[in-house]
Amino acid sequence: MSDDVNRQLVLRARPSGIVTDDCFELVERPVAAPVDGQVLVRSLWLSFEPAQRGWLNDVRTYVPPVAIGEVMRSWGVGQVIASAHPDFRPGQFVHGTLQWQTHALIDLSVETNPPTELAAIPPEVHDPMLMLSIAGVTGMTAYFGMRYIGQPVEGDTVVVTAAAGATGSVAGQVARNLGAARVIGTAGAKAKQDWVRQVAGFDDCVDHYDDKVRRRLRELAPDGYDVAFDNVGGSLLDAVLFNIASRGRIVLCGSISTGYRPERPEVGLHYYQLLTTRSARMEGFVLYDFEARFAEARRTLLDWYDAGTVHVEHDILADLPNAPQGLRRLFDGGNLGKQILHVADPV
Amino acid sequence: MSDDVNRQLVLRARPSGIVTDDCFELVERPVAAPVDGQVLVRSLWLSFEPAQRGWLNDVRTYVPPVAIGEVMRSWGVGQVIASAHPDFRPGQFVHGTLQWQTHALIDLSVETNPPTELAAIPPEVHDPMLMLSIAGVTGMTAYFGMRYIGQPVEGDTVVVTAAAGATGSVAGQVARNLGAARVIGTAGAKAKQDWVRQVAGFDDCVDHYDDKVRRRLRELAPDGYDVAFDNVGGSLLDAVLFNIASRGRIVLCGSISTGYRPERPEVGLHYYQLLTTRSARMEGFVLYDFEARFAEARRTLLDWYDAGTVHVEHDILADLPNAPQGLRRLFDGGNLGKQILHVADPV
Repeated sequence: MSDDVNRQLVLRARPSGIVTDDCFELVERPVAAPVDGQVLVRSLWLSFEPAQRGWLNDVRTYVPPVAIGEVMRSWGVGQVIASAHPDFRPGQFVHGTLQWQTHALIDLSVETNPPTELAAIPPEVHDPMLMLSIAGVTGMTAYFGMRYIGQPVEGDTVVVTAAAGATGSVAGQVARNLGAARVIGTAGAKAKQDWVRQVAGFDDCVDHYDDKVRRRLRELAPDGYDVAFDNVGGSLLDAVLFNIASRGRIVLCGSISTGYRPERPEVGLHYYQLLTTRSARMEGFVLYDFEARFAEARRTLLDWYDAGTVHVEHDILADLPNAPQGLRRLFDGGNLGKQILHVADPV
Repeated sequence: MSDDVNRQLVLRARPSGIVTDDCFELVERPVAAPVDGQVLVRSLWLSFEPAQRGWLNDVRTYVPPVAIGEVMRSWGVGQVIASAHPDFRPGQFVHGTLQWQTHALIDLSVETNPPTELAAIPPEVHDPMLMLSIAGVTGMTAYFGMRYIGQPVEGDTVVVTAAAGATGSVAGQVARNLGAARVIGTAGAKAKQDWVRQVAGFDDCVDHYDDKVRRRLRELAPDGYDVAFDNVGGSLLDAVLFNIASRGRIVLCGSISTGYRPERPEVGLHYYQLLTTRSARMEGFVLYDFEARFAEARRTLLDWYDAGTVHVEHDILADLPNAPQGLRRLFDGGNLGKQILHVADPV
């Protein structure tokens, strides 16, 4: 791959359900030298988030959708090649809105929606790739949701759905670090369930495709769950509601089972009435609610990571043309831990 | 009616849906004189609560169901006829588990589940009937749910479903007393909507049977509702979820639309995912969570009632045999305000 050519994946057609490769076209464009405050960044690792699927729908949510003909929006970690901006220098590791492309020419002075972002990797983040997992959006989402919405206390029983996923795996380990007595996960494949128990250190993990999942969760915690951290939604969230303890807290983090598609989810919640008789609550959040605490989250998570009390898995796929597959893997249960695309090696 | 005869409504058959008169049989039994700590109470007014419908199902929830052959369970206000208990004297006004009968022979020393309860009307409650509305379970439920779960603050926009009901009407007025800027209700019949606006003083009231209710609620509060107090559940709760503001709080108080029947409600919630993007929460409670604050609630509500900032409506039906109808009215939208059955006049 030459540094003279920028390979990009541009959106050609909106997916109606599953993201397919032919929704995107690989195009090659010349790499331009940065001028007037621009920074040229080589993409090293790109990050996949369920929210990206939502950006492909022709629906305006908290941000506008990706336009047809536009390079697919994505967070990533890269290395500065050349800089005409005083804050950045060649060789420096950065993270920001690199998009699905090998080279990002970033201009922080241009107003865009969502905003164009680029920042140096903070010095305490000793491995730049951690910026996409434990020290970034994924880890912080798990931390804030569990700590400040779920609020587990010493002795609590906790359940995390999609516990082999990037956020779920961290959320369960955060609960453990905060004193939870029992942490139960749900996951799809047998190998993931084993990983959740053996590597992430959960007390147990149930198969979330098991149609007896409601009963299995009950068997593992007959007195119910004090905290539930849900990444799945739909019928699995109903099974969680059925098993919530008195005064329980359900953290709504994601809803991967409903595919982030614009239709109303076909599966509605039926057991919400149990929130009343059990004096329980169900609460959502977005990461930016906690912007004032980002430094606290990063420091705490890295301390736990260094101490070995939070284990992080990176599931690394190679080569830019595989990016649609990377996104797809979040929804078909393919990934274990944080799904990342390796684009290039650091120099 | 002679004081020698106790007329009772005993459960003969469990209703499958709507409560019908023939589920109960009117029986007459001799009235016994109280001995050894017993108290004989004449029922004056009986109270109807949605929870009573749940007690007719053969399902154990937080209390066992009413057994076949048992007198229907009910709270009421009465007057002591004769007492063999040091705390009670003839003529005194009391409230407690009087049940659907004209005379209750109450023995506080016998352990029952749910517990048998009897207490004097507190001196600050100048009208004994208020013990069944503003100063009792109904008013306190509205107060605690709105004040401590909904937590409206100065300037908030609030919506209350079933706003012409006993709890909803008070909940909206509590929000107003706490500083809410706009209070919107939902109600069924036109006359009820008018009452909610004109008497209970809500800013507006929409028809909750209108299939455009979601849009109507949006028109009345384009920026969404900061607090929602829901007594209805089902598709109306979905319309509320659709219109919840960022950081909004949905108080789950009741679910009258689902009829408190044992089947899973047919209508599931679809818009719960909006709790995530809007950083909102949905929370239930039961009255006894707030037992330590009962005196505060009663004092505050009576102060507002006396000051005219909380209006209370009593919807009074006559004669014991009409009790099944009283309960039915809660579910068919018949009642306006607190549904009460008048059994006898005080002496």
